[in-house]
Amino acid sequence: MNYLITGAAGFVGRYLIAEIGSEHPEAFIYATDIVDEPDWMRGYSNLTYVPVNLLDRGAVDALVGRLIPQRIIHLASFSSVAYSWDHPADSFLNNSLIFINLIEALKKISSPFAFLSIGSSEEYGNVPETDIPLTESHGLNATSPYAAARVSQEMLSRVFSHGYGMNIMMTRSFNHMGPFQRETFIVPSLIKQFVGAQKSGQKSVELQVGDVDVVRDFTDVRDVVRAYLAILEYGKAGEVYNVCSGKGLLIRDLIQNIADMMGMSYAIHKDKNRVRPTENRIVIGDNEKIRQQCGWSPEIDINATLMDTISFWQDSIKV
Amino acid sequence: MNYLITGAAGFVGRYLIAEIGSEHPEAFIYATDIVDEPDWMRGYSNLTYVPVNLLDRGAVDALVGRLIPQRIIHLASFSSVAYSWDHPADSFLNNSLIFINLIEALKKISSPFAFLSIGSSEEYGNVPETDIPLTESHGLNATSPYAAARVSQEMLSRVFSHGYGMNIMMTRSFNHMGPFQRETFIVPSLIKQFVGAQKSGQKSVELQVGDVDVVRDFTDVRDVVRAYLAILEYGKAGEVYNVCSGKGLLIRDLIQNIADMMGMSYAIHKDKNRVRPTENRIVIGDNEKIRQQCGWSPEIDINATLMDTISFWQDSIKV
Repeated sequence: MNYLITGAAGFVGRYLIAEIGSEHPEAFIYATDIVDEPDWMRGYSNLTYVPVNLLDRGAVDALVGRLIPQRIIHLASFSSVAYSWDHPADSFLNNSLIFINLIEALKKISSPFAFLSIGSSEEYGNVPETDIPLTESHGLNATSPYAAARVSQEMLSRVFSHGYGMNIMMTRSFNHMGPFQRETFIVPSLIKQFVGAQKSGQKSVELQVGDVDVVRDFTDVRDVVRAYLAILEYGKAGEVYNVCSGKGLLIRDLIQNIADMMGMSYAIHKDKNRVRPTENRIVIGDNEKIRQQCGWSPEIDINATLMDTISFWQDSIKV
Repeated sequence: MNYLITGAAGFVGRYLIAEIGSEHPEAFIYATDIVDEPDWMRGYSNLTYVPVNLLDRGAVDALVGRLIPQRIIHLASFSSVAYSWDHPADSFLNNSLIFINLIEALKKISSPFAFLSIGSSEEYGNVPETDIPLTESHGLNATSPYAAARVSQEMLSRVFSHGYGMNIMMTRSFNHMGPFQRETFIVPSLIKQFVGAQKSGQKSVELQVGDVDVVRDFTDVRDVVRAYLAILEYGKAGEVYNVCSGKGLLIRDLIQNIADMMGMSYAIHKDKNRVRPTENRIVIGDNEKIRQQCGWSPEIDINATLMDTISFWQDSIKV
C-alpha cells in the first residue's frame, strides 16, 4: 500500500504520517508540500518527500502519474479564514485549483485508489442553536470565501465521485488541537500567552482574546488522523463525514481549565481584531455517522491534550 | 443610468437589450462578449459593444474602471452541462474565474451599483417529487460540474454581498425558450426537427429525443429578461430568486402541442446520447418570492412562445 499526502508538512500531516508509520509500518508514504522538507520528516524510512506546487497542473499530473497512489489524503489548503477575507479571489481560486489539479490527475490513472478530501465545519456557516448538534444532512451556508472554497471542494468531490465513479470521500472537520499547532489558532494562542507569563515569573496573565462566550467542538489531532484513516478504510464513496467529538466546550471554560492546570490566574481583554465578523455562538457536530460506518470514536480526553500542549509550549518558549 | 451586460451576444442578451431599449430608452448599455459584435446589435443607438475575454483579469479591471457601471447583469457562462462533463476542471474554473474577475473589479469602484448574478435550477440537483415546487430555501445539490460552478457563483455572491456590503442579487433561472435559442436546447431542437420535415414536404417526423417523460418549468425569454430587470430594481442584496413559471410541462405533451400547431404527426426515437446521466423526473419552481418582492409574474402564454418559435424556425430553415 502507498499513501500520497498533500500539505504533509503542516500540523495535521505530522500526526498523520506518525499514525501511518505506526499502524501500517509496511506502507510507503509520499509526502508533498510546497515548502522544503521539514526536519521531523527525516526520521521516517518508508517516506519520500516530494516538494510540489499543486497550482502547477503539469507538475501534479507528472507526480500522480509517476507515483500511482493508492490512498490520497488531500490536506493542502490555503486555510486561513482571515486571509480569505483579505484575498477572496485568490483564496477561493487557489483552493479550488489545487483540488481540481489533483483530482484531474487521478482521473487519468487506471488503478484503483481511495481519496479523502478534507473539509471544514465552517461549511455549515451560521446555524440556529436549535440545529445543534449538526448532522451531515444539515444544509451548508458558507459565510466566508474560505468556507465557500471548502463547500465547492466537497461539491466537486461528490460530482466526480458520482459522475465518474471515483472513490472519493469527504470530511467536515471541526476544531482540532495538539502540540505543534500554529498559534493563529485559539488553543495554542491562549496557552502560549499563559506560558509566556509563567516563564516571566508572573502568576497572572493578561489574555488578549476574541469572543470567549462561544462554544466549539474540539478533538485531539491524534484522534483526527485516526478518523481520516478510518474513513479511507471503511467510508463510502461520495459520502461526507463529520470529524468531531460531539461535545461542546465553552472557550471561557477552556481558559479556566488551562489556568487551573498551570496554577495561574488571568484577566480577559477582548481584542476586536480577534472577533470574526460572522461568528456562530455554538458549533457542535454529530459524529454518529462516522461511528456507525467507520467504527471511529475519539479516545483522547481533551484535558490530556491541553496538558500535552502546555508541556509543548513550555519546552518551546525560551526566556 | 448605465448597464453592463456580459455574455450580451447570446440568446438572453438579445432580449435583455431589447427590453432595456424599450423600457429605459434613456439608459446607456455597454454590451460585452468574447465574440465579434453581432449584426443585430448595430440597430441600437445607446449601445456600445466592447469585446472582452472575462478570463483576463487585467482587461476586466480596465473595463469596469472605465465604464463605472450602475447595473450589471452577468449572463456570461460556459453554459453547457454536457461540455462540463467532458471538461469538468475547465468548466468549473472558467465559470468561477470570470465571475470572480468581474466581482473583484466591481469591489474596487466606489460608486453604487446593483449586480445580478444568473444561476440555474440545475443547482437544486436531484430532488424528491414531494419537494416540488422548489422554493429558494430548498437545499442545493449540484450533480454536474456545471451545476457546481453555478452553486459556487451563488455562494460567492452571497459571501461578497454580506461580507463586503456589495449590492448583489442572484437568480436560479429555470428553463426558458423563444426564437433565436440554440438548438442544443430541447424546444428549438424539437421544433427544428418538425420544421425540417415540414419543409421537405413530410406530414410526419421521426423525432430524435432524450427522455420525454420528464416535467420542466418553462418561461418565455421575454418574461425572463423582465424578471431580471425587476430583481435589479426591487430585489434585496444577498438574496436569491427563482425565475420560473411555477408550472410544469411534460416534454411528451410539449411535443404533442407542437405537432398540433403544425398539423403534423410524429414518432419518438429515444437517443441515448440525449439522456443525461442524472436526470430529475420533475422540476418545477415556486415563484412566490419574486412575485411578492419584485412584483414580477410571467405574462406570455407558453403556447404563444411555441408559435413564435415555430415561425422563427420556418423563416430560418431554407430547403
